[in-house]
Amino acid sequence: MLMNILVTINSNYIKPLKVMLKSLFLNNPEEKFIVYLLHSSLTTEELDELKQYIAGQGHELKVVTIDDNYFRDAPVLLHYSKEMYYRLLAFKFLPLELDRILYLDPDILVINPIRELYNQNMEGYLFAAAYHDLLTVREINKLRLKPYEIDAYYNSGVLLKNLELQRQTIDEQEIFEFVDRNKVKLLLPDQDIINALYAKQIKNLDEKLYNYDTRHYSYYKLTSNGLWDMDYVIRNTVILHFCGKKKPWLKGYSGWFHSLYKHYEKLAI
Amino acid sequence: MLMNILVTINSNYIKPLKVMLKSLFLNNPEEKFIVYLLHSSLTTEELDELKQYIAGQGHELKVVTIDDNYFRDAPVLLHYSKEMYYRLLAFKFLPLELDRILYLDPDILVINPIRELYNQNMEGYLFAAAYHDLLTVREINKLRLKPYEIDAYYNSGVLLKNLELQRQTIDEQEIFEFVDRNKVKLLLPDQDIINALYAKQIKNLDEKLYNYDTRHYSYYKLTSNGLWDMDYVIRNTVILHFCGKKKPWLKGYSGWFHSLYKHYEKLAI
Repeated sequence: MLMNILVTINSNYIKPLKVMLKSLFLNNPEEKFIVYLLHSSLTTEELDELKQYIAGQGHELKVVTIDDNYFRDAPVLLHYSKEMYYRLLAFKFLPLELDRILYLDPDILVINPIRELYNQNMEGYLFAAAYHDLLTVREINKLRLKPYEIDAYYNSGVLLKNLELQRQTIDEQEIFEFVDRNKVKLLLPDQDIINALYAKQIKNLDEKLYNYDTRHYSYYKLTSNGLWDMDYVIRNTVILHFCGKKKPWLKGYSGWFHSLYKHYEKLAI
Repeated sequence: MLMNILVTINSNYIKPLKVMLKSLFLNNPEEKFIVYLLHSSLTTEELDELKQYIAGQGHELKVVTIDDNYFRDAPVLLHYSKEMYYRLLAFKFLPLELDRILYLDPDILVINPIRELYNQNMEGYLFAAAYHDLLTVREINKLRLKPYEIDAYYNSGVLLKNLELQRQTIDEQEIFEFVDRNKVKLLLPDQDIINALYAKQIKNLDEKLYNYDTRHYSYYKLTSNGLWDMDYVIRNTVILHFCGKKKPWLKGYSGWFHSLYKHYEKLAI
């Protein structure tokens, strides 16, 4: 089956992107992937190398270079570049014939087949995503974005997009106005925007299957009465997400899935 | 290259054996392995299934069934069956044309090429093995086997055997007498025998490369000034050994290489 994957990175994430893609390809040997890369800063050499890397494994990279001028008048935030809009407004830059695409963060391993995720029925939904169900995190974010009445705080690291519906529904001016109004409060801007403006049109995915926060192994295991042990995770979880500031490709990391990450990194690079 | 691998298991270890072999085959795609299985209790069905499993991956299983009567007069120990002798006296049951063989415990993952290990110059050595260099362990075992003046306490989980020299040198009566004399003191009988009787003829292997005790990740990292971090282990260590009573295929295990083990287990079974 042909599947569209969306990634948006700068040069710092080329290496983890390769690891993520390697795990995706290896664990989905029957699929053919077209990887759309939205960017504004990668060099021709970097893009060529990435193209070859992906082609060498039987898949295809399509590069969409975004002109700096496009977001000239969009509001910016102190610690975030305009790239924060790429993930939200990708539908504006992708071919019209695409009806859906799966956005994936680069700090991810795909360890099982993604076909079921990709083929979700998306009727009436703009996105499918998972929220991380740690009580504290949920409550804090609900308070922070209170006027927007969110039920859950979805994580935008794995985001299946209904591009057809997004083209009809999402208004970039509304997004820019939201950012302007909430500048001070936004912590993770694109994630906050999705949660505040579109929560009602997000289809809820099981986080333990599709957006497994690798920091929470013990919590998941405990709250499932032991069902989600390591064996179960490795056989069932589709997407491991290395959330948080400490990343497994950096020195000093330690975590439950460290050895597995390094295994894929060795295969990838 | 053709390499001989020796394993000696009973029914309880078929599953981990498959995982070990899967990791060996996957990470040594250019080699052809002949796996010799010494046993006395596996059923025909179990052996056939194992044969198919190995043949399906392009390698070969040769079964050597050991007659219970062979060790009729050998001394036994309370908690150990006569299978403890298989590892030591394998040379008696293997074809005369074999000059060397690599014995591997089933609680192992082989995560990098083993050719360099296998091709060690073994002139004058009966075995090549690694010892686990935790000070306490070493001292305790030196005291315990004091009359035999051992310098180190080698781990017998990974054992390269010089079969030619063993046929000329190793006397099974000497082994039986040693067991008789030391019954009370023997903790890990085959390992104790090798250490007490043959220490001077064991070639020392680097444990971090060839017999990495997965419980000691932090110790190895610390004592190498950080060199042996997870990245370095995954790229350099050849054999991970899941030593100790807690095994990664059993419920309740946790450890640095748990996710990696479960990954190989999924591929294997």
